[in-house]
Amino acid sequence: MDKKLVEQITSRSEDFAQWYTDIVRKAELADYSSVRGCMIIRPYGYAIWERIQKYIDAKIKGTGHENVYMPIFIPEHLLEKEKEHVEGFAPEVAWVTEGGNEKLTEKLCVRPTSETLFCEHFAKIIHSYKDLPKLYNQWCSVIRWEKTTRPFLRTAEFLWQEGHTIHATREEAEKETRYILDLYSELCKDVLAMPVIQGKKTESEKFAGAVDTYTIESLMHDGKALQAGTSHYLGENFARAFGIQYSDKEGKQQYVHYTTWAVTTRLIGAIIMIHGDDDGMVMPPRIAPIQVIIVPIAQHKSGVLEKANELKDILSKSVRVKIDDSDKTPGWKFSEYEMKGVPVRLEVGPRDIEKNQVVLVRRDTGEKTVVPMDNLENQVNSLLDKIHDSMYKKAKDFRDNNTHDAFNMEQFKDIEENKSGFVRAMWCGDAKCEEKIREITGATSRCMPLKQEHISDTCVCCGKKADKLVYWGRAY
Amino acid sequence: MDKKLVEQITSRSEDFAQWYTDIVRKAELADYSSVRGCMIIRPYGYAIWERIQKYIDAKIKGTGHENVYMPIFIPEHLLEKEKEHVEGFAPEVAWVTEGGNEKLTEKLCVRPTSETLFCEHFAKIIHSYKDLPKLYNQWCSVIRWEKTTRPFLRTAEFLWQEGHTIHATREEAEKETRYILDLYSELCKDVLAMPVIQGKKTESEKFAGAVDTYTIESLMHDGKALQAGTSHYLGENFARAFGIQYSDKEGKQQYVHYTTWAVTTRLIGAIIMIHGDDDGMVMPPRIAPIQVIIVPIAQHKSGVLEKANELKDILSKSVRVKIDDSDKTPGWKFSEYEMKGVPVRLEVGPRDIEKNQVVLVRRDTGEKTVVPMDNLENQVNSLLDKIHDSMYKKAKDFRDNNTHDAFNMEQFKDIEENKSGFVRAMWCGDAKCEEKIREITGATSRCMPLKQEHISDTCVCCGKKADKLVYWGRAY
Repeated sequence: MDKKLVEQITSRSEDFAQWYTDIVRKAELADYSSVRGCMIIRPYGYAIWERIQKYIDAKIKGTGHENVYMPIFIPEHLLEKEKEHVEGFAPEVAWVTEGGNEKLTEKLCVRPTSETLFCEHFAKIIHSYKDLPKLYNQWCSVIRWEKTTRPFLRTAEFLWQEGHTIHATREEAEKETRYILDLYSELCKDVLAMPVIQGKKTESEKFAGAVDTYTIESLMHDGKALQAGTSHYLGENFARAFGIQYSDKEGKQQYVHYTTWAVTTRLIGAIIMIHGDDDGMVMPPRIAPIQVIIVPIAQHKSGVLEKANELKDILSKSVRVKIDDSDKTPGWKFSEYEMKGVPVRLEVGPRDIEKNQVVLVRRDTGEKTVVPMDNLENQVNSLLDKIHDSMYKKAKDFRDNNTHDAFNMEQFKDIEENKSGFVRAMWCGDAKCEEKIREITGATSRCMPLKQEHISDTCVCCGKKADKLVYWGRAY
Repeated sequence: MDKKLVEQITSRSEDFAQWYTDIVRKAELADYSSVRGCMIIRPYGYAIWERIQKYIDAKIKGTGHENVYMPIFIPEHLLEKEKEHVEGFAPEVAWVTEGGNEKLTEKLCVRPTSETLFCEHFAKIIHSYKDLPKLYNQWCSVIRWEKTTRPFLRTAEFLWQEGHTIHATREEAEKETRYILDLYSELCKDVLAMPVIQGKKTESEKFAGAVDTYTIESLMHDGKALQAGTSHYLGENFARAFGIQYSDKEGKQQYVHYTTWAVTTRLIGAIIMIHGDDDGMVMPPRIAPIQVIIVPIAQHKSGVLEKANELKDILSKSVRVKIDDSDKTPGWKFSEYEMKGVPVRLEVGPRDIEKNQVVLVRRDTGEKTVVPMDNLENQVNSLLDKIHDSMYKKAKDFRDNNTHDAFNMEQFKDIEENKSGFVRAMWCGDAKCEEKIREITGATSRCMPLKQEHISDTCVCCGKKADKLVYWGRAY
């Protein structure tokens, strides 16, 4: 055991960035390696990713999506086929220039994203309208050569799923894009207890090569925004660049409509920054690798370990439960599992056994309840649900309390300087205003929410007529 | 639909290598890309890999193993830390030399295997005997810069799991190595219907940096051997190179004992070459993405599609079943699913419905049986088990019939020239004899089987005293 574990971590108010790094290290979610910008995802962190994978994989397979695996490398000429796309990605790719002791004749980039590979393949396998749609997904790692990195939030390598689907019509492709946005939102709400704003990116913030980029945006505890997932409608741009055509029912050649969408290991960073507190991680119950930790009290006394194991067996039917019967003190164990954010601690000692009861302690609120041992499985399960709901509500209240409306630049500046969080303001649609807002306040447009409200008639920046409500914020 | 699908593929006797490639393409298991030596694993091929993953992942998690994720890159200095290891891998790595538009100060190789990364991490997290064992596994892709490649069998990039475990004692590490070898053997036998020989590699064939390499070897239909999985005991070699020490109960510093083990997407190649025939793929039922294909006969007639869907619903409770109600002819559909190797075809037409029966056709033998609709789920499940057993027996009989004993080099040469398959022969233990055998016959030592037999007293090559039985063969 790392002895530093129960030492205090930096508090959020003292240094939020350091607090974040402390949790990542001390809750054993990730570690650094000697590889620049790349992280090691440790068992406890990887188990979270596996649960995210399982949720998404089951949902998309249930709606006809299939997993495939594309090469890790993209030859330079292939990356360059779609103009906007290569402009967006070229500055941040890693290049393989030597292989098997020889210099390569064409350099290969390690995939930053796989549109070009999917499109080359689609062009080969699509002939007729009968071949459509193709609903593909890939689980893999990608490389973005970032200058400054932080575990989970921004790393040179990260894990993700990338969906790539092609359709006969624009309508069908747009429906897919929105279906996935809803799926991501449900993942966040129902599994990660994380409220999100669904919206559309402005022209300047959208994905390199997309017609429309949809996003889910969430608010971290330091008041900064985080893009938690994106779903793009790419129109016919890639189809034209790669020649992905099909013959329709009338035998006419048509270009396919393309969508791509992704969520990444970044979500683990979001979970930390939304739910964590000064004692460490607070895991949303449905994603928690351990949901209940049983800590036997006075475990050397006759019958305690037996009873603790008996309770474990009962709970393990429906709950991810672990027992810590090591020789550490109960107090040490309490701190350790608080750091790891285990949602419920179950304490059981000789006096509890006598009274046929156990003590349940919530990680999120610290609340203790003494409950009878009978019907324990149901009680624990409903407590886990209750914790989920209450964590979601707390995060949503925080976000709502930190979302401010601005009607002119004075107000906007005042919010950025004296408060934090999302700013809601009307925008005329001009990229110059977006740019000016960024210069003056440091905030960028996060999204145009799908649920639009008309809070004023004029652009917060230029004062001209405006009909778009935009969420703004400083972002990760 | 690709019209070429139902055209004949090259027969095995005509050109085994071409037959293999035809199946890979026409059963839509994999495709080529413009990336040298890398393949695209298509949905039907990837679904096989997912089932292999699911089996192994559940088994190893059940015995306390945890998944982690290490960086994709290895800095040059790290790869060079263990001398034998780097000598084995350096000639076949791909190097990243540029990132984010800049030349790197130290080049990074794209991982060919991750021992060096795991060891660097282990050295940081291991302090006391209480931290041991660590039982880690990683699912990822790796790169080996191979000169000549073939889908699944030998590719520049392939998918695998790599297990990395460290233990306090040699005994415990050796037990782990053998546990994994048994697990791989069970996967092959119980899931892939693939008989394997368990054995130990000779010094010259073992993994770069290992003390002992255990292997499972299987025989393909062309008489060539294929290494299907390996499990290595690496002793203290890496621990010394990377300084992975723990203090034992007496407070003394000790080096850990290390094991690594892997199976790869190569197994998909083995399934093709062991079970496939001149009509295409033959899928072992337990790994088959589709176990039963329902082909409605005269599906335009009233009640046929309804009944077919009803049967599908019944079967889908326990069987991976699909219905093909497209407008292709039944004959076309038969060929298509034969090419894909679907274990059972279920035909149902108006006359069957009248008689309350269906027709079941086995892919492996072509055998047709008419069975009553009642109790269909049980009948199909026991047929799938029967097919599994019979495919395993067929493959085992083939292997046994193509395993020959040689007592001198004349016999050895004769077998290699006029027969094919495994050669069993005694060996004195001298690497020079191994080398001479390879020069004369083209065969390499595949393994020293764990179940040893003493078939003669003298080395097949030099005639000196020999006490090791070795399996030899030409290998993929």
